[in-house]
Amino acid sequence: MSKTTVTDPFWQGYRQLVRERMIPYQWSVISDEADVHIETENDNTPIAAIEHSHAIQNLKIAAGQATGDFYGFWFQDSDVYKWLEAVAYTLADEPDAALQAKADGVIALIAAAQEPDGYLDTYFQIRAPQRKFQHVSESHELYCMGHYIEAGIAYHAATGNEQALTIAVKMADCIDAHFGPEAGKLHGYPGHPELELALAKLADVTGATKYSQLAKYMLDQRGTQPNFFAQQAKAATHSGDSYWAGGEPAAAYLQNRVPVRDLDHAEGHAVRMVYLLVGMVHVARQTGDASLLDAAKRLWQDITQKQMYVTGGVGATSAGEAFTFDYDLPNDTMYCETCASCAMAFLAKQLLLTEPKGEYGDVLERELYNGTISGMALDGEHFFYVNPLAVNPEASAKDPTKSHVKVTRPAWFGCACCPPNLARLVASVDQYIYTESADTIYNHLFIGSTRQFANGLTITIDGNYPWSGDLTYTFAAEQPVATTLAIRIPAWSQHTTATINGTAVPIQTEDGFWRITRQFDATTKITLHLDMAPRRVVADPRITADLGKVSVMRGPVVYCLEQADNGPHLPWLSLPTSAPLTTQVDTTTFSVPVTTITAPGNRLAGPQAAPYTATASAPTLTFIPYFAWANRTPGEMQVWVTANA
Amino acid sequence: MSKTTVTDPFWQGYRQLVRERMIPYQWSVISDEADVHIETENDNTPIAAIEHSHAIQNLKIAAGQATGDFYGFWFQDSDVYKWLEAVAYTLADEPDAALQAKADGVIALIAAAQEPDGYLDTYFQIRAPQRKFQHVSESHELYCMGHYIEAGIAYHAATGNEQALTIAVKMADCIDAHFGPEAGKLHGYPGHPELELALAKLADVTGATKYSQLAKYMLDQRGTQPNFFAQQAKAATHSGDSYWAGGEPAAAYLQNRVPVRDLDHAEGHAVRMVYLLVGMVHVARQTGDASLLDAAKRLWQDITQKQMYVTGGVGATSAGEAFTFDYDLPNDTMYCETCASCAMAFLAKQLLLTEPKGEYGDVLERELYNGTISGMALDGEHFFYVNPLAVNPEASAKDPTKSHVKVTRPAWFGCACCPPNLARLVASVDQYIYTESADTIYNHLFIGSTRQFANGLTITIDGNYPWSGDLTYTFAAEQPVATTLAIRIPAWSQHTTATINGTAVPIQTEDGFWRITRQFDATTKITLHLDMAPRRVVADPRITADLGKVSVMRGPVVYCLEQADNGPHLPWLSLPTSAPLTTQVDTTTFSVPVTTITAPGNRLAGPQAAPYTATASAPTLTFIPYFAWANRTPGEMQVWVTANA
Repeated sequence: MSKTTVTDPFWQGYRQLVRERMIPYQWSVISDEADVHIETENDNTPIAAIEHSHAIQNLKIAAGQATGDFYGFWFQDSDVYKWLEAVAYTLADEPDAALQAKADGVIALIAAAQEPDGYLDTYFQIRAPQRKFQHVSESHELYCMGHYIEAGIAYHAATGNEQALTIAVKMADCIDAHFGPEAGKLHGYPGHPELELALAKLADVTGATKYSQLAKYMLDQRGTQPNFFAQQAKAATHSGDSYWAGGEPAAAYLQNRVPVRDLDHAEGHAVRMVYLLVGMVHVARQTGDASLLDAAKRLWQDITQKQMYVTGGVGATSAGEAFTFDYDLPNDTMYCETCASCAMAFLAKQLLLTEPKGEYGDVLERELYNGTISGMALDGEHFFYVNPLAVNPEASAKDPTKSHVKVTRPAWFGCACCPPNLARLVASVDQYIYTESADTIYNHLFIGSTRQFANGLTITIDGNYPWSGDLTYTFAAEQPVATTLAIRIPAWSQHTTATINGTAVPIQTEDGFWRITRQFDATTKITLHLDMAPRRVVADPRITADLGKVSVMRGPVVYCLEQADNGPHLPWLSLPTSAPLTTQVDTTTFSVPVTTITAPGNRLAGPQAAPYTATASAPTLTFIPYFAWANRTPGEMQVWVTANA
Repeated sequence: MSKTTVTDPFWQGYRQLVRERMIPYQWSVISDEADVHIETENDNTPIAAIEHSHAIQNLKIAAGQATGDFYGFWFQDSDVYKWLEAVAYTLADEPDAALQAKADGVIALIAAAQEPDGYLDTYFQIRAPQRKFQHVSESHELYCMGHYIEAGIAYHAATGNEQALTIAVKMADCIDAHFGPEAGKLHGYPGHPELELALAKLADVTGATKYSQLAKYMLDQRGTQPNFFAQQAKAATHSGDSYWAGGEPAAAYLQNRVPVRDLDHAEGHAVRMVYLLVGMVHVARQTGDASLLDAAKRLWQDITQKQMYVTGGVGATSAGEAFTFDYDLPNDTMYCETCASCAMAFLAKQLLLTEPKGEYGDVLERELYNGTISGMALDGEHFFYVNPLAVNPEASAKDPTKSHVKVTRPAWFGCACCPPNLARLVASVDQYIYTESADTIYNHLFIGSTRQFANGLTITIDGNYPWSGDLTYTFAAEQPVATTLAIRIPAWSQHTTATINGTAVPIQTEDGFWRITRQFDATTKITLHLDMAPRRVVADPRITADLGKVSVMRGPVVYCLEQADNGPHLPWLSLPTSAPLTTQVDTTTFSVPVTTITAPGNRLAGPQAAPYTATASAPTLTFIPYFAWANRTPGEMQVWVTANA
């Protein structure tokens, strides 16, 4: 892939956080160098068993370089792999010899821990070698190796480290030797989907179609009868480490109820569901499987039209971290795992690679500016697993059914999937700006950047997005390049204008893109002016939780009310339908500049038979970007605000 | 206690259900004669282990009259005792030789199962005799024996069966021999409060103050350090039957965090909390313990002012079936266990016996006409454990965090505390109409009835309450009786009028009572006219869930919208502030006549920036009594309705 240099202040800030804070910090956690308070994701009571990460140590023990027992969750290895993947993207962006040396060492450690046949899962190597691949619905072996394959590909691409890719190939070959339609192989598929998308990436990188065929086999096999998971579960000898000693979860939780092509509703554990879709789209593209793609697109529609929050969050219930049913989007009990929003970004990208449509970019952008980065504090060292849309600190403290809704971002989690997932997404955000077809360059994101394309054209985007909607596209080329540049015009931009070489041009869109077909060279200049007027968003009325409420957005950014600005009892505030929304550039409140929005509002005076008719005071409501919440004194927060006439 | 004959159509109907349906039905369940689908209370998945009741069989095994293993919950015995108590009140009301013979047989069985020292708990007798009283925070031994003591007292009073009382006395003596301040005794108290209130009743019946002293000791000891529960838990050898193998619950769950006099907030498991208060008030009255009474009254205020639903339901979270925090009253995730509302009625009665105040009667009435009887279908054979204020059947089916919110009443429960608790309350409702002091007869409820008092006066109340607010009090006496009749004037009755012997008289109230001091005889006639205009109730604005909403009440009855009358999407309906509320007598919809309320309403047309401003149609909203919901086609229900201008 051609190199993209990100110059955008917004993302440069986040990428700097990843490079300077998250990567060193996460290393100190996974290598047990830091004394970090580890929080469990679902409970205010830390699990005594997860007091430190031990993830690197598990690899050392498996490699014979240390002694001791395995420690942590079954998927502890994946924390290392996701860290490594984030490192890879960071090194691709900006060389760092010391970091590369450290990562090379981790690659060598992983190689040492890998068994001769390619198998690598430290839990089973240390604790239960006799149970390898015997209970994959639960075991996360395929999930962990999938994450390594992604990391190995990225690290090889960034640094040329051949060992990184060799490990991945050996893993995939090991899995290929054990799983497949042939007699004597396991006719199975991952408990936590992830390997499918990793195998598809490996097929792209190596050109070996057997990896997409293996992924396709796993996708085809999933949910069929006789059911593989049920068979393994029946035969399984559980250890004390089992989550599911009390019984396997429902097949729907594991997306194993029916074959994937028969799913018409996103169901079960949200991250599993969306990772599965990422793999489905990628494999469908590679194998030309139209029915697989159709199923994935149907589920994309279900999610984005009926099961997604305005922030891009998915997973409406904490029970199973799962999808529930259409239009069920409660704001204060939801899950909205950071990983699930990352997964939605991955899925949008796969769809854009398959079939460019503006709607995919619209959701990609919704995730990138809202539901993903809300998972990280502005210090880069504290993280949300759960991203609520309404928070009452007293409820989080005193109602156990809301204890998963944290009011401040913990330093780390016993189940630490989210922080490194977000790190790898942010570190690779440059890869989401464009996709290409034979005759068209598609521009999905308005991230300030310079990118050189294979056709000889270099495109530079300048601007201060998302705070400004004014963007300038300039070009460089040895000689003029005749091509089509298709720029996504966001659905939210009501009044978009543009100029080409200083002349106003009308914008027509098709599939969400404005297509400019011409000769591009250094004399070409396009300006694009997106409509950044703050706006009210109204939910589908079938979403009961949002009835009578609005959320406020500006550009791609979702806003919220926070107690720090608006005082307590946020539910007592309302926003009149006619109240003007005013923007201010705020460079002092947070460690990064943001645009805030204010509006004259109402505050409930007391009990009212009709809603909000009386006003004790007429406060100014201050809305801040949702991603920036919980960076000040802990307090209430809400995205959806009562509207009044 | 003098006999009260209930003539009231409303309560006669319920009492007939208890006599003719609930008691035979519940007998068939506890004696395993019926093949009933047993539902667990918290989960849509039945617990495989509780497929039938086995409660009588457990007693037979403990008595040596049958062989086999114990089966069911630890507190299975209590289902028999509560059934027996309901039988007692029913026999007191109307003799039934066959039923009495059956109940006499159960008493004999219980006597046979009781050990020579008075101990009786079939779980420990059958399974673990070595662990008697060794882990009382969890074991329910004291809870079960408490329930027997209540039943024995009631059965003895109703039938004169001496054995019934002897068993109770032996149990209390056994507990007295094991618990107390003396060296060598256990310095403990019940895990599930109940015994305290039973011991207080036994002290009243026997005159033996040692029982109130034992109860007082247990109340005084609770929550002190070193903590008894913690000490026992540390030493406990758990069996596979333990709920709490994973660790004891928080001390607050068990009302064991601080001494009871230091509690300023109702906390933990709601039924435990309120049963504890019932015992506190009764014991405080018996022992003249002012600080104990003050603590109970403070907690009553906390509950009724800050933690009680409009229906009288308490217990805002399903996690631990517990209280949460002030003004936290979500309508669709709450617990509101039927038993907890029964407990609130018991508590109100104890407070009325101690210190007559209208507010206690107001809450008593709220419980009796709403949150208690909503626990039973109009057929008397289906029951709610959880009494929601808003129901969406799809959410109950598809969101596991709402699976405890049933849409239809199950036939029975694995944990079957509620159905027999409601039966004994309804069967004894005659005991809640009056209390007496030396010079005053207090009338708390407007239940049509005739009661003969010790002073020679007989009072008859005629009316058709709660459907009509017109009540007539007539009197009979051998010779005129000079006394004070104090009639509670409900706080909700805005315009109350009355006549004495045909002459309109002004009503003045003190502590919620209208006091009439005079000579009463057969020539005396009082008419009372309560204001039965339907009214809107507005919640405290700190109750976020009810912001912008109203509930509709008429007299003591809370109303609700049901899908059967109003179509789907109940949250789309709103009630204009100015809309008149009209009443209709409806004798056809349900098996009992009810008064329904209609009003011109609005239905949301579609997405709206401001709430409910557009109306696709102007439907007539039909409100039915809350207690009658879920007796037709399953569907949505809600008590709180959006108000609009």
